[in-house]
Amino acid sequence: MNELNAENSENSVFKLGRALGKSLEAVDQVIISRLNKSIPLINDIGKHLINASGKRLRPLLTLAMAAQYNNYSKNSIILAAAVEFIHTATLLHDDVVDESNLRRGKKTANIIWGNEFSVLAGDFLFAQSFELMVETKSIEALSSLASASCKITQGEFQQMQIANRPETSQKDYFDVIGKKTAELFGASCKSGVIIAGGNVEDQDAAYNYGFNLGLAFQIIDDLMDFNNLPNKMGKNLGDDFKLGKTTLPIILAWQKSNNIEKRFWIKTIKELKQGSKDLTNAIEIFKKYKIFEECKKKSQEFIFESIKSLEKFPNTEIKDYLIGLAKESIERSR
Amino acid sequence: MNELNAENSENSVFKLGRALGKSLEAVDQVIISRLNKSIPLINDIGKHLINASGKRLRPLLTLAMAAQYNNYSKNSIILAAAVEFIHTATLLHDDVVDESNLRRGKKTANIIWGNEFSVLAGDFLFAQSFELMVETKSIEALSSLASASCKITQGEFQQMQIANRPETSQKDYFDVIGKKTAELFGASCKSGVIIAGGNVEDQDAAYNYGFNLGLAFQIIDDLMDFNNLPNKMGKNLGDDFKLGKTTLPIILAWQKSNNIEKRFWIKTIKELKQGSKDLTNAIEIFKKYKIFEECKKKSQEFIFESIKSLEKFPNTEIKDYLIGLAKESIERSR
Repeated sequence: MNELNAENSENSVFKLGRALGKSLEAVDQVIISRLNKSIPLINDIGKHLINASGKRLRPLLTLAMAAQYNNYSKNSIILAAAVEFIHTATLLHDDVVDESNLRRGKKTANIIWGNEFSVLAGDFLFAQSFELMVETKSIEALSSLASASCKITQGEFQQMQIANRPETSQKDYFDVIGKKTAELFGASCKSGVIIAGGNVEDQDAAYNYGFNLGLAFQIIDDLMDFNNLPNKMGKNLGDDFKLGKTTLPIILAWQKSNNIEKRFWIKTIKELKQGSKDLTNAIEIFKKYKIFEECKKKSQEFIFESIKSLEKFPNTEIKDYLIGLAKESIERSR
Repeated sequence: MNELNAENSENSVFKLGRALGKSLEAVDQVIISRLNKSIPLINDIGKHLINASGKRLRPLLTLAMAAQYNNYSKNSIILAAAVEFIHTATLLHDDVVDESNLRRGKKTANIIWGNEFSVLAGDFLFAQSFELMVETKSIEALSSLASASCKITQGEFQQMQIANRPETSQKDYFDVIGKKTAELFGASCKSGVIIAGGNVEDQDAAYNYGFNLGLAFQIIDDLMDFNNLPNKMGKNLGDDFKLGKTTLPIILAWQKSNNIEKRFWIKTIKELKQGSKDLTNAIEIFKKYKIFEECKKKSQEFIFESIKSLEKFPNTEIKDYLIGLAKESIERSR
């Protein structure tokens, strides 16, 4: 899950970050002070992750949703920090589960410190996120983020279950990415509205914006495994392919493939027997069937839904940036 | 962390379980229904763990503390289930971190399903515990258990940092076991009082009972690595020794050891160069310096504190059992 591209300094994430700059700095302060209060090794691992994790996209969503109500409260900042801790905890455990060695161009924590410390540091950040949420005394925000946390782990489980299975249905794939990625986007947005006192309809609208954005975001992320722009930081090209992960390009290509191509997917994805040219071969099949275009079209549909969910909010600068952020999220890949 | 011995059917845990039988059954129902609602593999792992984990000691403490106020509410049951989920989650991650293969005579989940599923199942149970707590709408109970969860992971970290260091101070050792074991005992008790509406003094007294019980419990558990009664289920004799864990017997023996014995500890605990007779050799040194007796004396002091904390509660059958449970916790080892 790479963060949005910050190269274009005038993109909407950048503008949103500038508009919410003071709050975002306060979020970083909360994160750093909590890590400092822990024991030194957790502090090191936490800071490594927090520094590597880029744009603070999820906390930004929480802050932006609250800002739509002119709420820039301490509680919105605490919740935003909690959201980032949940996200960071899942990254740590993801890397252990995936046996990754690179994230956003940096060595992953499990490689530097070992799996056992990564497991424990993830647990600490997760527990710390709940301590932060408790401070806001908002049972509703806690409920939303606890539910998302449950679904994230269920999604990770299900992702492992569909791994090496190119015959997976689109429905099962969307169920997986809904849980493992989109739920936290949704809950990050919803909790911002909750903490600002928005009504249930607004909470649901914010959740839908985030959830659909998360789906689009994950599809593009999966696409970038095969189709990354040059000079981007990020995971290695073909990382998911090497692990035999079942992502949307694979599923769509499998459905269209002839028997020879199906045998190729069985060999590379099911049996993980991969030669040095197989990533290129896979990309050739994707090009033949215009798979990248189809993935982009799918993510555009989710972005359309996402933006539609914002209709009920008043037209503000913040809302413009949220719309822009959604549109630009698709432009990360070629 | 083995559970109390159930062989003597008339011990206090058994009596407490009988007195709170209906509530305890309801706790199991909550646990099972939550696992059933999750995906099948989590269900399998969860049930394996829950079945293996024995006496439900921590939920029993939550229920017992609430029962002192004649509170047998749905919320006390939900909290007790949440406490068991936190405990089970930490066991799953412990076994990954320790690379264990046996717990209470059963294969550990990481051996059966692999580390990645154990990490994810632990995450799920932990997230599920927070979903349960949220249902009680008690910010105070959430706060107590979130804080304990944070401290557990800090304790696990610190335990790894003192590993292979027999020169560790008693203070550092008690800090570790306070966090990794005693905090959850304390919070289990405290949350029972919170949910029953007890005042802050009562909450603190319940916490102190549980915290001191937890310290004594962990000392005896550490002792049992060298000194287990026959025909007990449980982890293998010498498991901690093989890993070079720094436990109280090792620390006390190191302080008294002559130069030859110190070299033995350096070889076996620091350098992990262990021969087939080294466990027996270690036990011989313990016997020479009456280390087991000293450990028991230390745990008796904590049990004394634990029981003293109950003074402010009215004299009831439940209180008698809690006192008995504390006293009997020392009798688990020879």
